[in-house]
Amino acid sequence: MRAIVFDEGLRFAGDHPEPVCAQGEALVKVSCAGVCATDIEITKGYMGFTGILGHEFSGRVVSKGGALSGRRVVGEINVPCARCALCGKGLERHCPKRTVIGIYGRDGAFADYVSLPESNLHPLPDSVSDREAVFVEPIAAAFEILEQVSIDKDTRVAVIGDGRLGLLIAQVMALSRCNLTVIGRHSEKLSTLDAMAIDTKVGYDGLGREFDVVIDAAGTNEGLASALDIVVPKGTIVLKTTVAGNRDVDLNRVVIDEVSLVGSRCGPFAPAIEALAEGKVKVGALIDSVFKLEDGVHAIERASQKGVLKVLLEM
Amino acid sequence: MRAIVFDEGLRFAGDHPEPVCAQGEALVKVSCAGVCATDIEITKGYMGFTGILGHEFSGRVVSKGGALSGRRVVGEINVPCARCALCGKGLERHCPKRTVIGIYGRDGAFADYVSLPESNLHPLPDSVSDREAVFVEPIAAAFEILEQVSIDKDTRVAVIGDGRLGLLIAQVMALSRCNLTVIGRHSEKLSTLDAMAIDTKVGYDGLGREFDVVIDAAGTNEGLASALDIVVPKGTIVLKTTVAGNRDVDLNRVVIDEVSLVGSRCGPFAPAIEALAEGKVKVGALIDSVFKLEDGVHAIERASQKGVLKVLLEM
Repeated sequence: MRAIVFDEGLRFAGDHPEPVCAQGEALVKVSCAGVCATDIEITKGYMGFTGILGHEFSGRVVSKGGALSGRRVVGEINVPCARCALCGKGLERHCPKRTVIGIYGRDGAFADYVSLPESNLHPLPDSVSDREAVFVEPIAAAFEILEQVSIDKDTRVAVIGDGRLGLLIAQVMALSRCNLTVIGRHSEKLSTLDAMAIDTKVGYDGLGREFDVVIDAAGTNEGLASALDIVVPKGTIVLKTTVAGNRDVDLNRVVIDEVSLVGSRCGPFAPAIEALAEGKVKVGALIDSVFKLEDGVHAIERASQKGVLKVLLEM
Repeated sequence: MRAIVFDEGLRFAGDHPEPVCAQGEALVKVSCAGVCATDIEITKGYMGFTGILGHEFSGRVVSKGGALSGRRVVGEINVPCARCALCGKGLERHCPKRTVIGIYGRDGAFADYVSLPESNLHPLPDSVSDREAVFVEPIAAAFEILEQVSIDKDTRVAVIGDGRLGLLIAQVMALSRCNLTVIGRHSEKLSTLDAMAIDTKVGYDGLGREFDVVIDAAGTNEGLASALDIVVPKGTIVLKTTVAGNRDVDLNRVVIDEVSLVGSRCGPFAPAIEALAEGKVKVGALIDSVFKLEDGVHAIERASQKGVLKVLLEM
């Protein structure tokens, strides 16, 4: 099959072996996939991953016999062992033996086919298109924040970052009806939030220490330092950004101001699919471009450029 | 008066001006003071402080007329403006206009006299000696953890650090009857916890990711990395350590494992005084040595040496 592979470099493979399904797994013919900042970090060495990239996707189950056979689906990216103590507690996304498609120990979805346990798959309603469904995974990651941090209408929330993830997080935070400000660098990207009546701001001028919750989706080292500048004492910073390598950070400010830094990764798919189906989160304006799978290397290069929103691959 | 001053260097001053009390302040004749890791960090440049060092102290109010005149006292170290929004919310310890004795904008207690607002002072019961009372401030900082993080008898808690603060935090955590392990480098220091039936361990051999809450009181850059090695996914790391300068840290692990880093600084004095008065926290074994105020520079040098517990100054 065709695939975008990262090993000694990033390359298109025209005759990569198809995935072999293990017991309980389904074979999914990929329809559409999205390039995420994590994919780009992997090409810089993050996670030490080699194999087929890609973890945001939609597709159709082509293996026979399972409950989802023939259905359009999206897939949760963490594949747990289902037997350890953390899996027993419902913390499958933190299973220490897990693999993660396109990120750790398991091939991803920038390919004609991907295999995943049936229990990872969620059927898609007809009202969510293949392209829209690619956004389920990052929207779920945004919903994770609402499960981790108490946010209500009186909570002053700042989202740092007007990139792919920042704009999705902004829309999900707005669903909580909190007092929301989205801080970015590009007025044209922030303008995609105007129709949703979300307050936006280019840069930090005039901002003091005024936000109860600051969500760092900047995708750069600078996001956390900025978050520390605008969070109230005893406030919460949600860390969404992962970058290759360590970070040089002033943790004294965390101690002195008794700030909580909350790491946040993958989230629940069900509310993400529902939000898309009901039109509560809109993704059309976030699509920068659509590439053919054969042009996947160029697609990732395009997604790496500053200011580019979501780049999709269609198979 | 006599004082230990840090400006161009660390020095003893024999004829430093006495503090001038502002409205609402009391003049306290210092009886005893303790050297804290923060004092040592300040001599390396932390906080950019210059003036009289020292923030852990006991003394007697010698100014006339106030409600505490003539009483033995300890003093909270943050002096708030009492007018801003944070002060209005009871977050005086986070007042953005605060000064902090011996740390920021206000002279400290390594001197014959220190001035503080009467509202900062807490009277001491007779059962707490001047030397013991020096430990109220760090014990209060340990009680702060119990106000920030939910800890009960089923919580697996690790304290990293067998220094001055670590041994106090260990005793306060034990009051919560949690499942406690204290991890240090020196069996002789850890042995001070034996009489309290607290489990201790030299080094990390055999430890996995098994603690719900890890308290970093190591006082070094390495404490946080070790904490990340032994905290469970979705667990909590309490940061007590402040060091001069930025830290090089792998924040990806915080994101991937959805760990919460909770900064923790000063805490409530009332439970700390009560714990000392009732003998629930014992500090006798933590006193390394007692110096005269004139020998304060040597006292701080002594406290800077590895493995040395609490060094006191008596006036």
